[in-house]
Amino acid sequence: MADHKIPVTIRKIAADLQLAVSTVSKALSDSYEISTETKRRVLDYVNKVNYVPNTYARNLKKHKTGNIAVVIPEVADSFFSEAINGIEAIAQAKHYHVMIYLTHEDQQREHAILNEFRSGRVDGVLLSVSGGENQAQIRELTTHVPVVMFDRVYDDIDTFHVVTNDFDAGYAATEHLITKRCAQIAFLSMGSHLPITHKRSAGYLKAMNDYGFKVKDQYIIDCGSDHHTHYTILKKLFSRKNRPDGVIASVEKLSTLVYQICHEEQLSIPRHVKVVGFSNLKTAAWLNPSLTTITQPAFEIGKTAATFLFNTLDPRKKTEAKPERKVIPSILEERASTGKK
Amino acid sequence: MADHKIPVTIRKIAADLQLAVSTVSKALSDSYEISTETKRRVLDYVNKVNYVPNTYARNLKKHKTGNIAVVIPEVADSFFSEAINGIEAIAQAKHYHVMIYLTHEDQQREHAILNEFRSGRVDGVLLSVSGGENQAQIRELTTHVPVVMFDRVYDDIDTFHVVTNDFDAGYAATEHLITKRCAQIAFLSMGSHLPITHKRSAGYLKAMNDYGFKVKDQYIIDCGSDHHTHYTILKKLFSRKNRPDGVIASVEKLSTLVYQICHEEQLSIPRHVKVVGFSNLKTAAWLNPSLTTITQPAFEIGKTAATFLFNTLDPRKKTEAKPERKVIPSILEERASTGKK
Repeated sequence: MADHKIPVTIRKIAADLQLAVSTVSKALSDSYEISTETKRRVLDYVNKVNYVPNTYARNLKKHKTGNIAVVIPEVADSFFSEAINGIEAIAQAKHYHVMIYLTHEDQQREHAILNEFRSGRVDGVLLSVSGGENQAQIRELTTHVPVVMFDRVYDDIDTFHVVTNDFDAGYAATEHLITKRCAQIAFLSMGSHLPITHKRSAGYLKAMNDYGFKVKDQYIIDCGSDHHTHYTILKKLFSRKNRPDGVIASVEKLSTLVYQICHEEQLSIPRHVKVVGFSNLKTAAWLNPSLTTITQPAFEIGKTAATFLFNTLDPRKKTEAKPERKVIPSILEERASTGKK
Repeated sequence: MADHKIPVTIRKIAADLQLAVSTVSKALSDSYEISTETKRRVLDYVNKVNYVPNTYARNLKKHKTGNIAVVIPEVADSFFSEAINGIEAIAQAKHYHVMIYLTHEDQQREHAILNEFRSGRVDGVLLSVSGGENQAQIRELTTHVPVVMFDRVYDDIDTFHVVTNDFDAGYAATEHLITKRCAQIAFLSMGSHLPITHKRSAGYLKAMNDYGFKVKDQYIIDCGSDHHTHYTILKKLFSRKNRPDGVIASVEKLSTLVYQICHEEQLSIPRHVKVVGFSNLKTAAWLNPSLTTITQPAFEIGKTAATFLFNTLDPRKKTEAKPERKVIPSILEERASTGKK
């Protein structure tokens, strides 16, 4: 980017415009100590000479862009919005810009986005995958630029991983419903091809088996990828006679939808249906009824992933930066949706 | 960016590797029809010759990056996460990548981010400002790259604006509480320097005046910029004897905090305190009690802002693309937090 631009120092700008160096510097950072007219003069000049600010020039010299990319499925989910805050807390301290890209669970979109990073646009990538078949591409990308995978990771890609204990959390959610005397427990997901869905449902299956419950296939439910499909599938599930008496929503937005549909079908939570949601919703405690959650350490996961990434970017640490895997456990927070008074 | 790279066509790659053009194309898009070994051969080759994918090369030729930037305060707020979805719906149809940058309500951070866009990194910027003093910089930026401001805009910057009717919404929220017989109505904001806060509170003041209520200064409350300060200020407000009996939370996260504090102080919503929140929370209807909201047309605002931006980027429309201002109204959704049964 801008490799062809001629380096112009702030000192030269100041000399040419007969201004103090500090005045030019302040004008460039849009300080309100400097008049609009002076700012205009400085900006006109720097535009003319294609001046690239110093920090940026410094980065170019080191082949650094000063940017990292975060690639995630969406932001309308409290896990990701909190994870971003964890990432930004670290990035800000390192004076890096964070560019967030959304894949919307679309494999092709993810592919096109990741492709952009092969040409040196960013210094590192933090990635939480959509389901799909982009493993070969991701593996190839790790040869160009440091990649840290978090939350939704491919275990067989040799890079940094930061995850939570999805299997254990799936087990704990199921066991919790069993101890609350649920007998027909449904496991709801969005896309069974996601690695985390697989782990969470494996935990569900193990708990069902350990407690001697027969697992019915029709209770492991892929609710599809759009709101309309979620609604149609769940509406059908709760309208039928042998509806579940316990539900594990492995995706946040499905919890809220279960509330809506139970309301429509005049089913009481927790009397008719008990609900556990994988969710970091700040409002979980203020829902009617309050929602029992598997709360993921979203902020910590983001922070740890960013720390791993910056360790690989730090020339002093580079030799030590061998791929690591960190597991940060989730916790079950019991509330009224599973019968807590 | 990569301006120095030698253009290599997909046809040449195919010839050199003795593969079909379609095989190379599929290998580059990581299709699973192609073996890992072939993909590896193709990728090794393109890395060696610095091949830049065709769409990207095409963009370079037109001086286009294929990227637009969205600069917003945060994503942990349903207004912004929905607005992003509106923006992405349009950008995807135009085959553009969307890069999201967060300012965290920090003027210096916003300044540093906007500064990046002067050097041609993106084709356009969608901006919702943090409070601060960056007007001169934004005005200057509009001379380099098309800028569309949405939601939080500076009226005096001559560019495209997409907003909602904040004054009217502030008025409607206040009037609603007055008709519900609230006499001590507090207006809560985060940062009174924001243009939208100013408009919403002006609507509040007008309604109070129109209905003959005296406005008390201590009821127009800037709750500060971090969670700890929000909590301390609101805790104090609801602990005192002459506490408000009606609250307008002009920021989403303050609504939830009012619920928490009323719970701690054993105040009933809506019996002791009635609450209206500016919010697009999907869970508003499932809160205990359900929250009366001023619901903003977030998705529409995002979509319209992106449409304006792409109109300016479309060479066929460029001559018509004079700065426009679009106002999309918010609606009041009455729920139990203001007494609806």
